[in-house]
Amino acid sequence: MSERNASAKGPRKVLIIGGGFAGLECAQKLANDSRFDVTLVDRNNHHLFQPLLYQVATASLAASDIARSIRQVLTKAKNVTVLMDEITAIDSDAKTANGKSGTVYHYDTLLLAAGARTGYFGRDEWAEHTLGLKTLAEAQTVRRTVLSNLEKAELTSDPAEKKRLMTVVIIGGGPTGVELAGAFADLIHRSLKEDFRRIDTSKLRVLLLEGADRILAVYDKDQSDYTKKRLIKEGVEVMTSTKVVNITKGRAELEDGTVLESEAIIWAAGVAANPLAALLGVPTDRGGRVTPNPDLSLPGKPDIFVAGDLVAILDENGKPVPGVAPAASQMGRHVAKVLKEDARLDTTSFAGDKASLRAKFRYWDKGLMAIIGKNHAVVKAGQMRVKGFIAWLMWLFIHILFLVGFRNKLSVLLGWAFSYIRDNPEARVIVNRPGTVAKEA
Amino acid sequence: MSERNASAKGPRKVLIIGGGFAGLECAQKLANDSRFDVTLVDRNNHHLFQPLLYQVATASLAASDIARSIRQVLTKAKNVTVLMDEITAIDSDAKTANGKSGTVYHYDTLLLAAGARTGYFGRDEWAEHTLGLKTLAEAQTVRRTVLSNLEKAELTSDPAEKKRLMTVVIIGGGPTGVELAGAFADLIHRSLKEDFRRIDTSKLRVLLLEGADRILAVYDKDQSDYTKKRLIKEGVEVMTSTKVVNITKGRAELEDGTVLESEAIIWAAGVAANPLAALLGVPTDRGGRVTPNPDLSLPGKPDIFVAGDLVAILDENGKPVPGVAPAASQMGRHVAKVLKEDARLDTTSFAGDKASLRAKFRYWDKGLMAIIGKNHAVVKAGQMRVKGFIAWLMWLFIHILFLVGFRNKLSVLLGWAFSYIRDNPEARVIVNRPGTVAKEA
Repeated sequence: MSERNASAKGPRKVLIIGGGFAGLECAQKLANDSRFDVTLVDRNNHHLFQPLLYQVATASLAASDIARSIRQVLTKAKNVTVLMDEITAIDSDAKTANGKSGTVYHYDTLLLAAGARTGYFGRDEWAEHTLGLKTLAEAQTVRRTVLSNLEKAELTSDPAEKKRLMTVVIIGGGPTGVELAGAFADLIHRSLKEDFRRIDTSKLRVLLLEGADRILAVYDKDQSDYTKKRLIKEGVEVMTSTKVVNITKGRAELEDGTVLESEAIIWAAGVAANPLAALLGVPTDRGGRVTPNPDLSLPGKPDIFVAGDLVAILDENGKPVPGVAPAASQMGRHVAKVLKEDARLDTTSFAGDKASLRAKFRYWDKGLMAIIGKNHAVVKAGQMRVKGFIAWLMWLFIHILFLVGFRNKLSVLLGWAFSYIRDNPEARVIVNRPGTVAKEA
Repeated sequence: MSERNASAKGPRKVLIIGGGFAGLECAQKLANDSRFDVTLVDRNNHHLFQPLLYQVATASLAASDIARSIRQVLTKAKNVTVLMDEITAIDSDAKTANGKSGTVYHYDTLLLAAGARTGYFGRDEWAEHTLGLKTLAEAQTVRRTVLSNLEKAELTSDPAEKKRLMTVVIIGGGPTGVELAGAFADLIHRSLKEDFRRIDTSKLRVLLLEGADRILAVYDKDQSDYTKKRLIKEGVEVMTSTKVVNITKGRAELEDGTVLESEAIIWAAGVAANPLAALLGVPTDRGGRVTPNPDLSLPGKPDIFVAGDLVAILDENGKPVPGVAPAASQMGRHVAKVLKEDARLDTTSFAGDKASLRAKFRYWDKGLMAIIGKNHAVVKAGQMRVKGFIAWLMWLFIHILFLVGFRNKLSVLLGWAFSYIRDNPEARVIVNRPGTVAKEA
């Protein structure tokens, strides 16, 4: 462990990998504290408000509505340097990390907060035939695919092709799958209802597949049942206890032999920690996640911390801390607190093991909420259970508060609320992939 | 020429190619007129507000702010079918058009309003090394390139590379080049000023190259001079009488032998009509444009009309009608008027040459305006000449009116006005190209 005295040797070099909720929160808490020289590296230039990513996928929000330039957020944090680079290797003995750009990053303290990506439980070959939903580009691809499929269905005269184009299969009945299914049902049955002349968008099938016997398994059973009932009412085909055994191009094969043909198979069934977690030299779980000490540092490596979705840790009740934004923020904040306390001890005559004095991370569970299409949601917080319109209002209120803080731009919210009320999402524009557009028709 | 009687043979089949200002306006004027069965085909699903495309390129607006789903605009026009397809061939004898999808479109009347694309005056090989600015995808590529170059410049320690990355070359001193240069100057010298730690964004060079002896050649000379002075004050290097003789990867070579090295060479020097115009069997000019009869139909082909940027026609004063949105809209409206009058004559006993009775297109010149960075613009309308802040207010007022009508969404305007005032564009997010994002750092 580093015993350097900050005041004697200059500020402590803190390297943060990942500008998600955990990394950004930590950087913000260390901002303009002269004891720290912080470098935040992310392969994107933006911080993403992931809880609303499904709204980009379903054309309700524009990409820039839920993303902020990381350097813009940290523009006033003069001791923080933001770099867009992809870390490919970490050497915890030399205390360096290597970037794809060729840059070598030296650190005194490392915070790995690189998050999670879409995970396929060992069936990585399925990635090629499914659409993930963890990044802005993925969300835009989902949107482009579903909207383009409708355009193609309007054009084609082949009934089998039309059917394939008008089928959306969502694999995974967790919050992402549920929110996506509900939003697609809204888009198709409300917003797009009058837009087409040759196809009947109400015939578009949205299938939600879940391996377990109920969707939203982390909620109470009656909330799961309510959600299923609501989705079915919105026209979603909810298939529980349904295992996918194989996926090839345009085909999802179920355990009972059924084959679902669809040009839009969306994978919302699992995430895996960023592969960087595996480079830390500590054991990882099935999802590639790391279990740190209670202070979030790694066993035997008090100068390396982890936070966010790549952490597998239990809360005070012995339940896993979920991979949600509030948990990631809390971890990032905790790491900053520990670093500050370490730095304070550096200026005292204390000569013992500082790591042993560090505060333990405590997760404050603010509850869970999932939205089910328009006007309905489920909320589970402490002993409280709410469902239906009131839950939806709670969801809306909290996300508006969040986004207003996030964007500092009330107008996005107004526009969003407005189009929500009018069933008229403004973002239903297909932007061709760069390189595919040579001329206009 | 078709002499069919609409009431006897059912509605007249009108095929509109292109959903820009001309095509959309024509479709809207024919909406719910049972004498017409209209099909509008565009290779994109969106109508684009091109006058503000430079704002997408410079991160002030999101793509969806200046684009509308064509079928959403026409959702209530029950006699209009919108199809997303690319027309590849037109047979004016058989009265058919072929789509890339394999569809064959039969028409009684054709309106070709496919617009223009970036044109290289015969140097098509330059396309590969420059960035165009005619489509949403191109605008997003410009944004991504310039923002990514700054990120790379922040990372690199190679001074020559840093210089190349921090140089933006804009070729073409027309309205697009001027507006782009001014907006980049704003972005770099105002909005991004505090965001970077290692590079000084004020050192970023924006060069505006113009072959003629002044920029904005269609304006008066003192307006051109004023614009040049303003741009120079904003930090843009304006090079008039400067001809580009060759462009290779990252290098623009000038007539005097100077080589400009830049990782962002933007081509705003010319447009060419959509190649479909050449398929009509009538002569085209150097820019591939077609000169129609005064009623906008083609010589010898009274059932084929052209409108918008692919038309080369003179106004009443013998000056070319410019390739601007109001001109395109007026042409689209004119074609609809002619079709309605033709249909009316069909129901009378008139047996002569209807085409000879058709109204002539008259261009109503509403004037020109160009914005020069923040707070400055030039306006030329009739005898009126305005420049500076008042001109900028006029620009803002007209574009706000336009956009409010366009989007029916005041909130976008509010957000835009707000970030304009605060020097804080919200859209400065780099979205990776789909397919390049496998995992997050």
